Amino acid sequence: MTLVVVGSAGMDTVETPFGRVEDAVGGSAVYFSLAASLFTKVQIAANIGQDYPRRVWDFLQHERGADLAGVRTFADQPSFRWSGRYEGDMNSAQTLLTELNVLAEPPTPPASYRGAPFVFLANMGPDVQLRMLEDLDGGTVFADTMNLWIEIQGSALLELMKRIDGLILNDGEARALTGETNLIRAGEDLLEMGPRLAVVKKGEHGAFLFTRDFHFALPAYPVREVVDPTGAGDSFAGGFVGHLAACGSLEPDALRKAMAYGTVAASCTVERFSTEGLELANRAQLDARLAELRSFISL
Amino acid sequence: MTLVVVGSAGMDTVETPFGRVEDAVGGSAVYFSLAASLFTKVQIAANIGQDYPRRVWDFLQHERGADLAGVRTFADQPSFRWSGRYEGDMNSAQTLLTELNVLAEPPTPPASYRGAPFVFLANMGPDVQLRMLEDLDGGTVFADTMNLWIEIQGSALLELMKRIDGLILNDGEARALTGETNLIRAGEDLLEMGPRLAVVKKGEHGAFLFTRDFHFALPAYPVREVVDPTGAGDSFAGGFVGHLAACGSLEPDALRKAMAYGTVAASCTVERFSTEGLELANRAQLDARLAELRSFISL
Repeated sequence: MTLVVVGSAGMDTVETPFGRVEDAVGGSAVYFSLAASLFTKVQIAANIGQDYPRRVWDFLQHERGADLAGVRTFADQPSFRWSGRYEGDMNSAQTLLTELNVLAEPPTPPASYRGAPFVFLANMGPDVQLRMLEDLDGGTVFADTMNLWIEIQGSALLELMKRIDGLILNDGEARALTGETNLIRAGEDLLEMGPRLAVVKKGEHGAFLFTRDFHFALPAYPVREVVDPTGAGDSFAGGFVGHLAACGSLEPDALRKAMAYGTVAASCTVERFSTEGLELANRAQLDARLAELRSFISL
Repeated sequence: MTLVVVGSAGMDTVETPFGRVEDAVGGSAVYFSLAASLFTKVQIAANIGQDYPRRVWDFLQHERGADLAGVRTFADQPSFRWSGRYEGDMNSAQTLLTELNVLAEPPTPPASYRGAPFVFLANMGPDVQLRMLEDLDGGTVFADTMNLWIEIQGSALLELMKRIDGLILNDGEARALTGETNLIRAGEDLLEMGPRLAVVKKGEHGAFLFTRDFHFALPAYPVREVVDPTGAGDSFAGGFVGHLAACGSLEPDALRKAMAYGTVAASCTVERFSTEGLELANRAQLDARLAELRSFISL
């Protein structure tokens, strides 16, 4: 089934113990789409400037069959830029610079995206996410968020949570949003706040899935060299929602397998800088990693 | 098969967001034995003062069939005391006070413990662990360690690692000992240093097992209220080594299941202060939790 993603496309300058890339392709919608397009047809809505490399869009369109009707190029503004540094265990980035540029305007999904059976609203202000939700009128809707919105747009976020099917966020965000330190209780609290699914990502420690019927945990796929964690969370979301859209199901088996595909998609991303890992990835590689992951946790 | 544990018995004063206990029963040998004795016959070697509560020894002896021949009571010195505080995510304690007292002397396992098929050397100076290794002349030997020994007795620890079968330590210790941030590589590096098994415990994030043939990961059992994490690591070790001793095997299936028993034993400990959780525990409860854990990770 078709999957619409609304999010950012940015140019990232990233420094890790393994090196540095400047103005590299990035952004939530790009990482998400590169992962999700390995599973299903993806329709992308994101704002860019004329400086954004054309190459990745050509790749998404021609190699991965993505629909770019919602990618809007601004003539008068540069692309969103983010710069950050990872150190030590690389579980979180130190942000050095953020330039919103074209992100000051909300994305504008075209009419042809309306009614998509699956939607992913990447990290944006919950006010914008609510508007996208209305405009798109999609079927099953997942959303991401971040600490900033929990702090400054808490009530819009709570409103959004009542109207989406699943929230995908990291452990720090889950704790901040629920005020609960214990992650199991935090996950259960998230469900109380509206969505029937909550995915809590824990970086190198894996991820939890919470539903009203069951909980599920996965460790991260064992990556020996984490080169650049940028985009891991959006890649996870892409593998997760991508698989669900491909099977058109939220049944327990589909959800568990979606968690595993999210996990292995993220593992491809972190092994290389920028989007290179996901561009090189294919379904056979993801399936092989899923089999390895299954054996890694086989009890 | 019989399992000898050499370690500490201490009296802990612990403060957590859920309350405070003073001079409560604790110590590595006590937590370990309470968990391991649910699986197999345990022989304990530890030093105590006359102030140490008799109750837990009676319980271990009469309810759990433990052999206390190696529990040595010092007339002239008080028991080891530790005081600590847990805050926030409770993943690590702030130590407020340590009084070695009877721990200044090494434990003295009696001759009747010699040649035990399984041995656990709880956290002690690696010089003492090496002496215990010699004295006991046991079959399969596991050891724990801590950052202090990595810093001040590094070469004795490296010597120990060449002579034991398995090292059980936490993620911070694994990183410090190998100088490797990535935990998968750290685990592999530990095996290069001698032991054929390495267990890396990650608190609320679960645990890894590394062997030369396979790696294995488990999340923590989902505990909704972590009241006091003291002793969780030793309880894990008790469930882990206890199960292996009970089956007398280090085969992959036994190792995976041992990891699960370690996980659920630790879950019992953290739900209550001091050793109460493990004293109330029984095999039926551990087996029920193991089944829950299996479903929690079923992919």
